Amino acid sequence: MLTQNWIVEFRGSGRANIYPIQETLLHTKSQFQEIVIAETLSYGRALFLDGVPQSAAIDEHVYHESLIHPALVANPQPKKVFIAGGGEGAVLREILKHNTIEKIVMVDIDDVLIKIVKEHLYEWHQGTFDDPRVEVVHADARAYLEQTEERFDCIFGDLPDPLEGGPAAELFTREFYALVKSRMNAGGVLALQTENTEIGWCKAHVAIINNLQHVFAHVQPYQSTIPFYGLPWGFAVASDAPFAERLNAQSVERILQERGCTDLSYYDAETHQHMFSLPRFLRSAYRDPEVAQKLQNALPLSIS
Amino acid sequence: MLTQNWIVEFRGSGRANIYPIQETLLHTKSQFQEIVIAETLSYGRALFLDGVPQSAAIDEHVYHESLIHPALVANPQPKKVFIAGGGEGAVLREILKHNTIEKIVMVDIDDVLIKIVKEHLYEWHQGTFDDPRVEVVHADARAYLEQTEERFDCIFGDLPDPLEGGPAAELFTREFYALVKSRMNAGGVLALQTENTEIGWCKAHVAIINNLQHVFAHVQPYQSTIPFYGLPWGFAVASDAPFAERLNAQSVERILQERGCTDLSYYDAETHQHMFSLPRFLRSAYRDPEVAQKLQNALPLSIS
Amino acid sequence: MLTQNWIVEFRGSGRANIYPIQETLLHTKSQFQEIVIAETLSYGRALFLDGVPQSAAIDEHVYHESLIHPALVANPQPKKVFIAGGGEGAVLREILKHNTIEKIVMVDIDDVLIKIVKEHLYEWHQGTFDDPRVEVVHADARAYLEQTEERFDCIFGDLPDPLEGGPAAELFTREFYALVKSRMNAGGVLALQTENTEIGWCKAHVAIINNLQHVFAHVQPYQSTIPFYGLPWGFAVASDAPFAERLNAQSVERILQERGCTDLSYYDAETHQHMFSLPRFLRSAYRDPEVAQKLQNALPLSIS
Amino acid sequence: MLTQNWIVEFRGSGRANIYPIQETLLHTKSQFQEIVIAETLSYGRALFLDGVPQSAAIDEHVYHESLIHPALVANPQPKKVFIAGGGEGAVLREILKHNTIEKIVMVDIDDVLIKIVKEHLYEWHQGTFDDPRVEVVHADARAYLEQTEERFDCIFGDLPDPLEGGPAAELFTREFYALVKSRMNAGGVLALQTENTEIGWCKAHVAIINNLQHVFAHVQPYQSTIPFYGLPWGFAVASDAPFAERLNAQSVERILQERGCTDLSYYDAETHQHMFSLPRFLRSAYRDPEVAQKLQNALPLSIS
Repeated sequence: MLTQNWIVEFRGSGRANIYPIQETLLHTKSQFQEIVIAETLSYGRALFLDGVPQSAAIDEHVYHESLIHPALVANPQPKKVFIAGGGEGAVLREILKHNTIEKIVMVDIDDVLIKIVKEHLYEWHQGTFDDPRVEVVHADARAYLEQTEERFDCIFGDLPDPLEGGPAAELFTREFYALVKSRMNAGGVLALQTENTEIGWCKAHVAIINNLQHVFAHVQPYQSTIPFYGLPWGFAVASDAPFAERLNAQSVERILQERGCTDLSYYDAETHQHMFSLPRFLRSAYRDPEVAQKLQNALPLSIS
Repeated sequence: MLTQNWIVEFRGSGRANIYPIQETLLHTKSQFQEIVIAETLSYGRALFLDGVPQSAAIDEHVYHESLIHPALVANPQPKKVFIAGGGEGAVLREILKHNTIEKIVMVDIDDVLIKIVKEHLYEWHQGTFDDPRVEVVHADARAYLEQTEERFDCIFGDLPDPLEGGPAAELFTREFYALVKSRMNAGGVLALQTENTEIGWCKAHVAIINNLQHVFAHVQPYQSTIPFYGLPWGFAVASDAPFAERLNAQSVERILQERGCTDLSYYDAETHQHMFSLPRFLRSAYRDPEVAQKLQNALPLSIS
Repeated sequence: MLTQNWIVEFRGSGRANIYPIQETLLHTKSQFQEIVIAETLSYGRALFLDGVPQSAAIDEHVYHESLIHPALVANPQPKKVFIAGGGEGAVLREILKHNTIEKIVMVDIDDVLIKIVKEHLYEWHQGTFDDPRVEVVHADARAYLEQTEERFDCIFGDLPDPLEGGPAAELFTREFYALVKSRMNAGGVLALQTENTEIGWCKAHVAIINNLQHVFAHVQPYQSTIPFYGLPWGFAVASDAPFAERLNAQSVERILQERGCTDLSYYDAETHQHMFSLPRFLRSAYRDPEVAQKLQNALPLSIS
Repeated sequence: MLTQNWIVEFRGSGRANIYPIQETLLHTKSQFQEIVIAETLSYGRALFLDGVPQSAAIDEHVYHESLIHPALVANPQPKKVFIAGGGEGAVLREILKHNTIEKIVMVDIDDVLIKIVKEHLYEWHQGTFDDPRVEVVHADARAYLEQTEERFDCIFGDLPDPLEGGPAAELFTREFYALVKSRMNAGGVLALQTENTEIGWCKAHVAIINNLQHVFAHVQPYQSTIPFYGLPWGFAVASDAPFAERLNAQSVERILQERGCTDLSYYDAETHQHMFSLPRFLRSAYRDPEVAQKLQNALPLSIS
């Protein structure tokens, strides 16, 4: 017999997932969050922050390719990139696959997390923290953007859930998106994770899209299924410049080719089609005025 | 305090979902399976067979619209329809939305289940068991097809998992598909559920597609996300007649309109695009000779 | 595969028990509480009130013999008996084993529960609800005692946990015990369940004993292990008359014999010794002034 | 939110306990067993071997005082002591409280466990591994006893469950008990843990007592409740010399006093009475010929 060691993720009072754990590599608290790294039985090594599953060996590439490549494709010449959050370093790995990249500034508030990630999640970052083009800053992403005089071509939000009182809550607001916009070069593109897109639980996602639409002229939500979450997960690209001509199934593969992105595992033209064609209920939700009213309390997520 | 009553679905030893139950309406055994109908806290009323979640109020329409409409759209004039399984009766509800339908034969082995469904899952069947075009037979679907002299335009497999020793195992074999084909009118179309399409757990799905490709000239897998399962779920249409000209985002809405299918909640042109554009790993898996070899043991699913 | 249907009993945030359920016979709400009757896999048929395990086929006799016989033995001639609570009717069954009994008044507030118990828990009451000596009243036990002019030889408290805001909370107070005392004949004895006696979790038990000691001249706590609870469980007898000469290992068997109590399964002289010899930490807790101070908030039990 | 990290102990298919974990200090495998040391939310620091709870900060003294003191009291002059197992070192701590002790040989097969225990469970052993009277040997207890020419006054079995194929299985057999007896000085006493004494689950306990009775002239079972297990737990003392005159409530406190055992927390005269007065169903089980027949398969415990 082996120890039945489970991480149980309750989603409100009505749902829960069980992650059987083979070995707990680390269970600690930083100043900002509780950090667990464990070998799960079905998903391989995995990271949990404040009890919420973040990414797992088996499918982290789905999440990270989904988050990174559409925005980089949408921008004609992404040289300078900013990342709010980005903990595991897998976003660095994906961004650096584009041969146009000259500089990445990653601002993650939690230096303890970064140190742990460097040691325990090599498959995620693959050493890219040491790439000369990468600068990692331990600060509040918002405060950093407020002060910086740099301007970026792409900005990414690789952030945990916008939990009430949590460190990411204010990075999902219109104010933050306006700040992000003001720090972009012309044609700049923002991409971020935008929460659960399930039927019945997509309110926070719709609220984020709604916030983006108040700030950016062009907003395109999309989604990928993340087995580790047991959920379809939302993302969005947003820009004041139109990007539809670049960001479509016809162009995507050509642009990836030009950029030297030849070793992707998940993202390609048809996967793009899959991600960007949204089911009817999501499209309705974006337009529904009743839904819009309810969204006022949708963010931040309440903890219970 | 209320009772913490959970239905826990273990998927092998490495994963499990928890369904908190508000009230158990029925927990019994028929000759063929254990049947539970319960009010879940998050998905509304739901049906579990042998401990496996089948369908829930909140998203059964996603599953049933996904299963039914593509095949009916693919057939130019579906009049006679056969259903292997079909327990909840929601497939009847969806099929009858097409104004071409003249006759439906539904062969479900478990009469106890059908009786329970009629009483407890009205929202699923909406009284369609009593439609004069519907004939329900309690028999083994295979035995029935072997004997019948009728021929059908569309045949549906609305079946539980092909579990080792379970009643559905032999309805996922090449032999059964060949039998199905022999009972079709010219241009006949088969559609069926084809199991989990998650990255890392899609082996049974790929094996089913593989079996279909041995029997039918044209096979098209697709998928929808079912929150109640916490999974993306596979389906397929298969036919000896080509259907690509009818079954695409451009044609789907026109055909649904012609058929009088105006009250669908999930399926439309863009949802079609979402369902039929498959992520790269699935497309690779269908073609991979290494995967093909492993598929020999993929079905039936072992119980553990 | 069978449904993994679990009733999970959380005890605060730090402990929980899982009861695998074979079949849920009933899950409903009365005006006063949520009622579940289920076939458990390991304890047989069982009753849960507001999610808290009450009694199970396999060991309900341990609980009910423990509650009833010591007090009846302590009283020289118990003829008239009052029960506050008593839901399952097993207390009736045990009390009627004493050939001195002339009348039992059982006041349980929840008539819906009693009706359910009569139908589903026959092994508990064994038809004794229909015994001519038994009168069942559906009322608040306190209100009933305030009004009654009857006097009783033994009074039993067969009550659920004294949960904050719950119906039993005020039946564990000094006020209620004083009321009980005023409704006793000379030599009258009270017995009641007095909660968990585990090391580390016996605060509520000690508080109840403390309350009893404020009202009665003679108070004797004792305990039995209830597998269904996974706990040692406390009881007490209390009286203004001394009972030590009757209630000891030497006398118990003789008195039971005289009373015609020959078919007990659990209680006898040595079991008595086991129940009434208390481990050191409990004896210390009753005397400890520090503990006494903390007891002020020990009752009612907070819900969380 | 904090991670909901649970260790779940399944007892067969019908029961389970949940231990919420605050922090996993260590999760590893030795050559003999899987070892987990974790901070539990309700029991403090705790040790799990092969998924089975062994001892916890909050109540390990109950287990270890129960195991050690009765046998030492039963022996008139315990100088040399042998321990089979003894992992946590808490048995050393308890034995050394008796001022007669001159030598303790502790033979625990798992040196990795002992090393871990020394580092993580100081409160258990309190440095007694370094006491000059203590000799720790990493070997199979049976092989050691077979070879040794030493003779002992008291021998203790502080062993995990006798699981099928596990390292402790053969240390619960009549053969082992006969070996133990042959290594005793005149008047030698054996004490050991004897598994679960719950009503309904005491078969293994009764089988162990039965085995002891085949080998020793005097066998006395007893029990204590261990909250960490959620169970009453069995022990036994066994000897060829009569010990009833020493091992009773009257003598126990006097002997402990003489020995200088003045700082016990759990064991004293009345606790002794509690532990050694056994409920009726246990006493019947020891004598029941039907039970005796079933015992042939009761050991070792099957794993499922």
